[in-house]
Amino acid sequence: MRATTLDLVRDLEPEDTVVQSMPDVSPTKWHLAHVTWFFERFVLEPAGIARFSDTYHYLFNSYYNSAGEMHPRPERGLLSRPTLAEIRDYRAHVDAQLADLLDTDALDADARAVVALGLNHEQQHQELLLTDIKHVLSLNPLKPAARRDLRRPASAAPPAYRFRRGERGVVRIGHQEDGFCFDNETPVHDALLQPHGIGMRLVTNGEFREFIRDGGYDEPAHWLSDGWSAVRERGWNRPLYWDEALETEFTLGGVAEIDDHAPVAHVSYYEADAYARWAGYRLPTEFEWEHAARAEAVRGNLLGTHAWHPVPSRDGTQFFGDAWEWTSSAYAPYPGFRPLAGSLGEYNGKFMCNQVTVRGGSCVTADDHIRPSYRSFFYPDARWQFLGFRLAKDEHD
Amino acid sequence: MRATTLDLVRDLEPEDTVVQSMPDVSPTKWHLAHVTWFFERFVLEPAGIARFSDTYHYLFNSYYNSAGEMHPRPERGLLSRPTLAEIRDYRAHVDAQLADLLDTDALDADARAVVALGLNHEQQHQELLLTDIKHVLSLNPLKPAARRDLRRPASAAPPAYRFRRGERGVVRIGHQEDGFCFDNETPVHDALLQPHGIGMRLVTNGEFREFIRDGGYDEPAHWLSDGWSAVRERGWNRPLYWDEALETEFTLGGVAEIDDHAPVAHVSYYEADAYARWAGYRLPTEFEWEHAARAEAVRGNLLGTHAWHPVPSRDGTQFFGDAWEWTSSAYAPYPGFRPLAGSLGEYNGKFMCNQVTVRGGSCVTADDHIRPSYRSFFYPDARWQFLGFRLAKDEHD
Amino acid sequence: MRATTLDLVRDLEPEDTVVQSMPDVSPTKWHLAHVTWFFERFVLEPAGIARFSDTYHYLFNSYYNSAGEMHPRPERGLLSRPTLAEIRDYRAHVDAQLADLLDTDALDADARAVVALGLNHEQQHQELLLTDIKHVLSLNPLKPAARRDLRRPASAAPPAYRFRRGERGVVRIGHQEDGFCFDNETPVHDALLQPHGIGMRLVTNGEFREFIRDGGYDEPAHWLSDGWSAVRERGWNRPLYWDEALETEFTLGGVAEIDDHAPVAHVSYYEADAYARWAGYRLPTEFEWEHAARAEAVRGNLLGTHAWHPVPSRDGTQFFGDAWEWTSSAYAPYPGFRPLAGSLGEYNGKFMCNQVTVRGGSCVTADDHIRPSYRSFFYPDARWQFLGFRLAKDEHD
Amino acid sequence: MRATTLDLVRDLEPEDTVVQSMPDVSPTKWHLAHVTWFFERFVLEPAGIARFSDTYHYLFNSYYNSAGEMHPRPERGLLSRPTLAEIRDYRAHVDAQLADLLDTDALDADARAVVALGLNHEQQHQELLLTDIKHVLSLNPLKPAARRDLRRPASAAPPAYRFRRGERGVVRIGHQEDGFCFDNETPVHDALLQPHGIGMRLVTNGEFREFIRDGGYDEPAHWLSDGWSAVRERGWNRPLYWDEALETEFTLGGVAEIDDHAPVAHVSYYEADAYARWAGYRLPTEFEWEHAARAEAVRGNLLGTHAWHPVPSRDGTQFFGDAWEWTSSAYAPYPGFRPLAGSLGEYNGKFMCNQVTVRGGSCVTADDHIRPSYRSFFYPDARWQFLGFRLAKDEHD
Repeated sequence: MRATTLDLVRDLEPEDTVVQSMPDVSPTKWHLAHVTWFFERFVLEPAGIARFSDTYHYLFNSYYNSAGEMHPRPERGLLSRPTLAEIRDYRAHVDAQLADLLDTDALDADARAVVALGLNHEQQHQELLLTDIKHVLSLNPLKPAARRDLRRPASAAPPAYRFRRGERGVVRIGHQEDGFCFDNETPVHDALLQPHGIGMRLVTNGEFREFIRDGGYDEPAHWLSDGWSAVRERGWNRPLYWDEALETEFTLGGVAEIDDHAPVAHVSYYEADAYARWAGYRLPTEFEWEHAARAEAVRGNLLGTHAWHPVPSRDGTQFFGDAWEWTSSAYAPYPGFRPLAGSLGEYNGKFMCNQVTVRGGSCVTADDHIRPSYRSFFYPDARWQFLGFRLAKDEHD
Repeated sequence: MRATTLDLVRDLEPEDTVVQSMPDVSPTKWHLAHVTWFFERFVLEPAGIARFSDTYHYLFNSYYNSAGEMHPRPERGLLSRPTLAEIRDYRAHVDAQLADLLDTDALDADARAVVALGLNHEQQHQELLLTDIKHVLSLNPLKPAARRDLRRPASAAPPAYRFRRGERGVVRIGHQEDGFCFDNETPVHDALLQPHGIGMRLVTNGEFREFIRDGGYDEPAHWLSDGWSAVRERGWNRPLYWDEALETEFTLGGVAEIDDHAPVAHVSYYEADAYARWAGYRLPTEFEWEHAARAEAVRGNLLGTHAWHPVPSRDGTQFFGDAWEWTSSAYAPYPGFRPLAGSLGEYNGKFMCNQVTVRGGSCVTADDHIRPSYRSFFYPDARWQFLGFRLAKDEHD
Repeated sequence: MRATTLDLVRDLEPEDTVVQSMPDVSPTKWHLAHVTWFFERFVLEPAGIARFSDTYHYLFNSYYNSAGEMHPRPERGLLSRPTLAEIRDYRAHVDAQLADLLDTDALDADARAVVALGLNHEQQHQELLLTDIKHVLSLNPLKPAARRDLRRPASAAPPAYRFRRGERGVVRIGHQEDGFCFDNETPVHDALLQPHGIGMRLVTNGEFREFIRDGGYDEPAHWLSDGWSAVRERGWNRPLYWDEALETEFTLGGVAEIDDHAPVAHVSYYEADAYARWAGYRLPTEFEWEHAARAEAVRGNLLGTHAWHPVPSRDGTQFFGDAWEWTSSAYAPYPGFRPLAGSLGEYNGKFMCNQVTVRGGSCVTADDHIRPSYRSFFYPDARWQFLGFRLAKDEHD
Repeated sequence: MRATTLDLVRDLEPEDTVVQSMPDVSPTKWHLAHVTWFFERFVLEPAGIARFSDTYHYLFNSYYNSAGEMHPRPERGLLSRPTLAEIRDYRAHVDAQLADLLDTDALDADARAVVALGLNHEQQHQELLLTDIKHVLSLNPLKPAARRDLRRPASAAPPAYRFRRGERGVVRIGHQEDGFCFDNETPVHDALLQPHGIGMRLVTNGEFREFIRDGGYDEPAHWLSDGWSAVRERGWNRPLYWDEALETEFTLGGVAEIDDHAPVAHVSYYEADAYARWAGYRLPTEFEWEHAARAEAVRGNLLGTHAWHPVPSRDGTQFFGDAWEWTSSAYAPYPGFRPLAGSLGEYNGKFMCNQVTVRGGSCVTADDHIRPSYRSFFYPDARWQFLGFRLAKDEHD
């Protein structure tokens, strides 16, 4: 699995791996080192293995206050060293030590659970690495591609937007299947669903274009107050990577024509919410989403498709892949939530404020890394991830 | 009722009414004019009565985009004119016209509902006016009092902190009584309560002091990530108006000794949450709060007590008044929520993002302005209001 | 003389005297108190007279680090107290004590020199008070007048722009006459004048309008690099108080038509320099100016004219009054410069960096407060003072 | 000469060449491309040779508004492409075309003058490249060296500080020798020198350490007002690259012990001025400096010494190399100054405001790139260059 990470950077130059285009973005090099640090810090160190470098320990701690001081996040792009080659060495070093530990059965069940967490953590950073380098390259007037051999499936119009009547009443929410999950998917608990209908696919570029053409970005009545402020202060008038003419967009494969049949992505929560309001609908809650998604197969346009870009739904049903979906739910702990013990308790719990839950994974989510109970989360003004949305509506008895 | 507003400023000087100490704060003069503008814009204008002044229309619109352009909020403190005396004239002018309309039965039911809304709106600004001038005067090294004749009830230790076992299962939430309510209290709907216990009173200054003495502001483990950032960036180490020695605090009556028996106030959501985490508890949801509050009489230390400051609970039960209580609930629309029609739809709905619901009213909330279903809301870093909290805990079957 | 200061605020409301519209501006109230503090701190205190108030001592120190801690300059507008009435009392109190001291011959020559400095200091603040309140009122959509009885002299076109051949070679510069001067006008020293011609009057609004019409604000070739940055970042495209249509301007008497025959004012050094470059000329050095001004009578449109606004030159010769004139000279110490002893050494010397010398006084400079050797100084981006300019040119042998 | 530029980056990794550590700093890659662009834009294009790339034209224009739109300076560090290898190709391409032109005598005298300017321009960027990468690497906790084979001459105490009585009266200033000069060194003109003494060497680290130990950074009386603001706002308490213990400093060869005998460098104008004031002296004017330097041989610790760091003066006389010297002169045009024609007129003239003249070159100035009339200039708060100072004093007749 960790080999996948290195494959993602195959077509990048060393220079590409240095840049931090905004504080939210981390340099490619940093991602490669940080996921390695995670294994070193939470598996090797507890097993008594000495650090590769005290400075690396400082540089590649992301946000674990209990693991010690760390390099300030907005200054990750100031670090030209260690070089990409040195970080590959660091990865190889830690991988070898980890392999030794795994071979010798030196790790108990708890430690093996941390290894599993580390692998899932690395998958999360595989996605971040790609969305971050997309942002970096998009700002370069030369518009370089992050990858040269991506697939671009043939496009066709998806079926018209369709709602399914949702379950109502009390349902079980949270990770109920076997296998790995993050702490924020627990505990399983009851949630109450109101009468509602839920859209079966994501909103498309073509549909979003109608909102733009109708003056959607100019009419405050569609917008939350904070959203309207963002629109005016940042000059938003289209999804993040669209050109001014609304004809092309920047993709991981370089500049491409906008496919009106494909799901819209790189919109903020505010834009998703405004579109829904304009269209006479609303966004689904994360519980409505999860319950509906349980009825669907966990497959879709994920990392393995090697499109690395949203593609049209063929049959009008789309729940996994393409783009993370903004829900109407603030990211909050489930009733009775307990974070992991120790430093790993900082993994998810401390972010449960000011963010919005997104669901379903994207076109750069690892294929085995998504499930109905999976919760990710972003601030409502985030746009640099593959972020799209589906619609929902109230039903009346 | 509108006479009350003018009584609140009785001990202020004209100079006091000009200052805007931060963008969240509005000058006293502006509050007095804005509540007047509200009646003029939403009652008199629809009744065909000409504006007092086009410039006033621009200056005193708060945030109603659909009512036209408005003066930028952060620049309200740049306006020395109209003077306080001119604004009193404006109030008298609009009051007279409104009285005429009400006398002549010229207003239909809808318009009379807007008058009721306007009166409740003015009560909200009575509270804001006092909390805003408190902030203004607190920054003055002369530490002037906003009011000279406030009552200071005798202090005594409240009973030890006590939890009541809460209702579990589906309960009815929202405004179910007769009388006025805001749109954000509707519609009545079901909510699911998990097994829980709810604290019977607010946390006190003395209890919060223990958190400080235990190094609560220095230990990131207690804090949400955004809260910890706020602590470090803004240098927070005590409630807003406490002095460095933790002995005195600034009040609407000037500098006073901190009463350890009284509820702590002027803390952010982050501080409330950190205290609860440190103490091994959590904050209640707004639904837990509302259901518990329905069992209590709607009375307490409100504006009419004329203390204008939190006071100790005598019997250990405190639900209304003293300080608004941070809940753990993000401020969101109730299922099926529909904002008011027209411009008044901007009153509440567009703020349902990034804010936290607070409940219960404060020591400067009008006595007839609070009820179990009442929802107010602030950004989680807000501290300049009378903001305190109670504890809650999970129960297990 | 101090009575003049109070007369300047005759038509202001108490509310007007509170506002600080930008950090460069001080509230009217603050000016009235600070000039009083100056006498108290530098005359009464050394004479053993107790302070009126320790808090006032802190609040009304402007920038004298050696006189103790002081209230931060950008927060002067947060102070509603002391009120205007209280500051009048403070003034009366200090005036009475000062009068006593002067009557009893208790002050030695040094102390009497400080009194003279204090009076000149107050005259400087008379000008600042007016230019600051002009800025404050200009930002108010009601556009109130600071004064209601100002004179507006009849307008007529001045003679065409004319240069006089300047002195060349070594000349004496600095205060060589009897009477008061500031330390920055000393010592008298030699300066070398290159062959040059100096314009006889200020550039007019009409002449500056030609620069605008010719696209002067759109052509980087006319501008210093820092000036061009200012133009783009702040959106400058006309003098500070002109309206967008270039027809009216805000004055101390309210909104008035722009008089094309009057000197242009409220332009930055960058605009003055750009105009000169566009016109094929340059600004004079402060030495060229001073030497030329010595040939002229010290009179003009000063405070006593009671126009409080620049007026056209009748005879084409204008050296004193109307508007301070940007020179091309960086504000620097004269060779051998020694600041005053003690705290008063901070009066001028520490500002001799990053600023530009201006000369000649303005329409709100006290009539007996200007002379050929007088040097004032502003940052090159300043515009809120009455700041204009004349042209100069190189002569070749 | 252009080969020298590439030699400077010999020990850098491709990753090092990407980073922009602050807006004043440009990435190494950018310097390599920009100096190439200069030849392409100002020599090849006028000769009718097509651009290598329109995007490069946009990316590598520094500040020539008349040459077209340009990439924003603060965003140079966002550009991972073109890579270092691609920029080397660009250099080779332009070099080849330039060599062809020079071989074939296709360039007239004016064009050959621009080639000479381009070579001097490249020498300036050789220095900037080194000082910029020093800043970049200094911020990396790994503290990498920019060069591994630097010489470190043996250290010995220089003679005690000594002043030479300077010329007084009118002297000739400006480029009077044969050979290349920049436009800002012209025209030759008279300047008036006051009676003065000028120090014979730079102030040393050891001498500056005394200022620190005496509380120099804590006493506002030593500082210009803007300097004192910088000290407090930026927390300055020692030269830029010194460690907190005042024992080591970051150099182009990595971390090294501070040599108390060597000249202090990386201090702002404010610090130089404060030291001089504390010591009872002043900084020299640029005219005093130039006249004194004419008496000295143009040699010293320059780039060719390959120390790339200031070294002690052996004989107590130091005028060229080691560190640029802050003068007391604001950077201004000489009387009768005319900038170059066309776009190259933007080279120097438009920066003649808000900056301070520095003189003498530094340890990373090319050996044949310095002369008595050479003027460079920086904002007074600049510290990242090799910036030191000498003392001067007034003499009295």
